[in-house]
Amino acid sequence: MADSEKNIKLTIEYDGTRYHGWQVQPNGPSIQQEIETAIETMTRRKVKLLGSGRTDAGVHALGQTANFICRTGITPEEFLKGLNSLLPEDIVIRKAAQVPPRFHARYDAVSKRYRYHILNRPVPSAIQRLHTWWIRSPLDLATMKMGMAHLVGEHDFKAFEGAGSPRSSTVRRVTAMDLKSSDGGIVAIDIQATGFLRFMARNIVGTLVDVGLHRLPPDRIKDILRSRDRAEASATAPARGLFLMEVFYEI
Amino acid sequence: MADSEKNIKLTIEYDGTRYHGWQVQPNGPSIQQEIETAIETMTRRKVKLLGSGRTDAGVHALGQTANFICRTGITPEEFLKGLNSLLPEDIVIRKAAQVPPRFHARYDAVSKRYRYHILNRPVPSAIQRLHTWWIRSPLDLATMKMGMAHLVGEHDFKAFEGAGSPRSSTVRRVTAMDLKSSDGGIVAIDIQATGFLRFMARNIVGTLVDVGLHRLPPDRIKDILRSRDRAEASATAPARGLFLMEVFYEI
Repeated sequence: MADSEKNIKLTIEYDGTRYHGWQVQPNGPSIQQEIETAIETMTRRKVKLLGSGRTDAGVHALGQTANFICRTGITPEEFLKGLNSLLPEDIVIRKAAQVPPRFHARYDAVSKRYRYHILNRPVPSAIQRLHTWWIRSPLDLATMKMGMAHLVGEHDFKAFEGAGSPRSSTVRRVTAMDLKSSDGGIVAIDIQATGFLRFMARNIVGTLVDVGLHRLPPDRIKDILRSRDRAEASATAPARGLFLMEVFYEI
Repeated sequence: MADSEKNIKLTIEYDGTRYHGWQVQPNGPSIQQEIETAIETMTRRKVKLLGSGRTDAGVHALGQTANFICRTGITPEEFLKGLNSLLPEDIVIRKAAQVPPRFHARYDAVSKRYRYHILNRPVPSAIQRLHTWWIRSPLDLATMKMGMAHLVGEHDFKAFEGAGSPRSSTVRRVTAMDLKSSDGGIVAIDIQATGFLRFMARNIVGTLVDVGLHRLPPDRIKDILRSRDRAEASATAPARGLFLMEVFYEI
């Protein structure tokens, strides 16, 4: 039987510490490149892996998604096992599934959820240093929640967009935000939105931290949104605390 | 005022991945060596750091303890800040305190608690790969708890002692054991004991995992203890899952 053309969707976990981000880069290793190479080793064909979107250098993922189209007799289960045996330990395929031919990991994504981990305690952590942003001074979480409330809904997030990658529209809908603290000083901030501008999640976190440290009143968030001026928002939170948790699809 | 002789106790967190264990080694970096060097940079004196005990290559700690005696005007608070600014990111001093001259981190320790992290799910983890032991097949936690019960109390743990470092007595008292599972497939095994033989915690975990996989019945633990034969217990669990959590003192 001839090999049939398949569309394979991958769900991917990675530790971004060693990588120059998701997308293939001329100057250093990327997640996309590592996975493409592993797929090509299995299929002996050139392949193009389509991610749901880029993640920046140093950002992690528990649920990045991507798809590729390939004429092959290899089953999704075989891809799952085979890719995990070929990939370095800091990239793991969590799921592999055959999807309809029209499925596109980027165009069909309807929303994404990111989580940001802050370590809020007097001393840094040796164990969690690569996956948290250490903030020494106590954060006022109640005030941060008040600030967060202004971000939920449809807004122009221009003030929270990183420089150098302008989009035609900077309006996005934040569908949910959540903030939880747990034992050991971890503060987790969840942001779910229909789309994210470049650095948007990390610029939101940087601004919320300033609110939590009482450098900004929580209502300032409204003015920052209205200003559409990046200089009004706070510094970008470090990449190491950010995780792409889940990408949502309707199909 | 002349500098007075102080006894300083440190509580230390470290990621053991990069190190050849706690103790100074001729062939590679050790935690003890890194901290001694940092203390000597601050005090400009030769110093001997006394740990509560060794941890093996690759083992981590959240609460290792150690002390050193030094004639210095530096306060404990200054040691905390100064050492953390000198040490690599994977070693953190969590507390520094002045203690009575007679305090000795090893001789005065009355018990220790270790925690072992297993990741029990079908696929490995990119994020937690350096701090967990990945077990693919589902563990029967209820059966593991039955096996654990045989270990609590005073026993001869000879069968769980690593080769090559015989002790005059291999009797130890396990004062508490606990097993908890949490979201994401993490199984945490806590072992508190008056003392640990070499590899004892990891040999206990390796044997409990065989019980959880139904390779050994839980009552076999009693026979293994009675045998005093290392060959009867299971393989040593990997270092990467083990954390020294706390060292207890009466003074």
